[in-house]
Amino acid sequence: MRPEVIERIEALLPAQHHRPEIELLYRMMRDYPARGGKGIRSELLLRGAAAYGAPPGASAWLATAIELFQSWVLIHDDIEDDSEERRGQPALHRQHGVALAINAGDALHAYMWEAVLHAGVEGAPGEFARMIHRTAEGQHVDLAWVQHHQWQLTPSDYLEMVRLKTGYYTVVVPLRLAMMAAGRAPDPRLEAPGLDLGAAFQIRDDVLNLVAQGQGYGKEIGGDLLEGKRTLIVLHWLQGASCGEREAFLSEMAKPRSAKDAEVVAALLHSIQHSGAVEHAMTVAHDLAERGLNALSGVLQEAPHPAEARHILGLMRQLATREA
Amino acid sequence: MRPEVIERIEALLPAQHHRPEIELLYRMMRDYPARGGKGIRSELLLRGAAAYGAPPGASAWLATAIELFQSWVLIHDDIEDDSEERRGQPALHRQHGVALAINAGDALHAYMWEAVLHAGVEGAPGEFARMIHRTAEGQHVDLAWVQHHQWQLTPSDYLEMVRLKTGYYTVVVPLRLAMMAAGRAPDPRLEAPGLDLGAAFQIRDDVLNLVAQGQGYGKEIGGDLLEGKRTLIVLHWLQGASCGEREAFLSEMAKPRSAKDAEVVAALLHSIQHSGAVEHAMTVAHDLAERGLNALSGVLQEAPHPAEARHILGLMRQLATREA
Repeated sequence: MRPEVIERIEALLPAQHHRPEIELLYRMMRDYPARGGKGIRSELLLRGAAAYGAPPGASAWLATAIELFQSWVLIHDDIEDDSEERRGQPALHRQHGVALAINAGDALHAYMWEAVLHAGVEGAPGEFARMIHRTAEGQHVDLAWVQHHQWQLTPSDYLEMVRLKTGYYTVVVPLRLAMMAAGRAPDPRLEAPGLDLGAAFQIRDDVLNLVAQGQGYGKEIGGDLLEGKRTLIVLHWLQGASCGEREAFLSEMAKPRSAKDAEVVAALLHSIQHSGAVEHAMTVAHDLAERGLNALSGVLQEAPHPAEARHILGLMRQLATREA
Repeated sequence: MRPEVIERIEALLPAQHHRPEIELLYRMMRDYPARGGKGIRSELLLRGAAAYGAPPGASAWLATAIELFQSWVLIHDDIEDDSEERRGQPALHRQHGVALAINAGDALHAYMWEAVLHAGVEGAPGEFARMIHRTAEGQHVDLAWVQHHQWQLTPSDYLEMVRLKTGYYTVVVPLRLAMMAAGRAPDPRLEAPGLDLGAAFQIRDDVLNLVAQGQGYGKEIGGDLLEGKRTLIVLHWLQGASCGEREAFLSEMAKPRSAKDAEVVAALLHSIQHSGAVEHAMTVAHDLAERGLNALSGVLQEAPHPAEARHILGLMRQLATREA
């Protein structure tokens, strides 16, 4: 993450209070930002702002806001998914309990709005509101499928869900905010390639959750399976699975995480890893990324600083093929 | 709740989506607002706005925002406290599960910000951010006491917690927003009486949770005790309790809600109800309310429409003595 973002998070979030209980809240709010995420979204926003010639102060505050958004959303997502780890450490609710973690996420959400207000960019508050609406809708769909044991899903159901859950806030919104920070109306041609690249990025994430190796990947391998997440990989594997495998899978997925049988899950994980479904998902991600990069390149080359714009394409390509 | 607030909530929140899953999210967001809360905070804000001559559109949007704040906070509070009921019906997470309810609260939080932005009142977004900071700090202290089994608390610890958790958003902020909507700088003399009245209001709430009768009170009687909430009543009772009672109480409170013994809790409830602690708390609330009303009356009589200001005092008095 860029120093100007880290400095602003540091300056914005409170640290000291005469009540030690409240200092614990402050430490909880600072925890995820301090775990050092990749800062992809702020980097994209700052690169975009440079490409369009935005003033650095305004874009740095918007970049800070988007990283704070990511932090509060992850605190709540980790509870909603009952995740164990985040960025190589126990998830916040596993350290402090669900109640304090929900509240710390809400507190951080309000600080995100302070960062948005600091930027003073016309249109940015409305953009953040719409971003949360879309992200919450995508997250709701993802969670509702888990809760209602819904596996009758097509690849296009999955893609619609990830576009909402990930695509807007990861790619579309940072680029739109970059244009707004430069005093421009956001280009509507950013949306389709942004959503393609966001989906490619999420599919890559799903792949890494199954096959990532060693350090650098901060979550447990196969965690998505334990959480019952719908991914393109699992949906594809289900289409080709035998009746027996399919039944074993659905009966295991109907159990809560704590009741899942580790051996059965390991056998399913092995079957999925060796079914060709991972390679299929990587091909889909590659095609989405190429289509997105081509379209995005056409829009970005009209920016006043096209050299910065080329960095954005390099960053996007790197994300869609990253190993951790 | 006033019709202009209900209409704006209705118009702001989405209702239809081509995916039925997302329509469920929309129904969840509309659920608590539709359960018909008392609308105390929006009423106070609108009365204050009339007293200071604010334009009705701006104040109606701020009133809508404060009711949406109340709704998303209650969704999350009910999860954090593991409450069973809200406004006479099962709490949202008991109907739809914790994961979907956390997410619906977050979605509603973002719509609150849209209402704030619609108002277009200078200073109001910063006021909402500070209100959430204080409320989250108060809520954190309340939850941290429960989680860390902290009962070594004085009445002044309790009062500091409820001023943060309830006082700001119930009284101080609605009155400050009313002045801002009228284009004035908020009067700093509103804060102390607002916090006194907010604390009186919360103590009244704690009393009702122990002694409310029949319909009109939308939560389970004694629910605070099952949730292990620290109240002035319980802290006072503990001071006068015998060693045996104190030990029985602390050992019962150390258990999670689901492991609490209904008979032991009923006996403790009976002892607390007949100890004089309820009457003591009512006296404290009465004194805080009188002090707050006196000071507030001095500030409000300077408003350009003092007849409206007198309605505010009547409303505050009613709240501090309400029966449901």
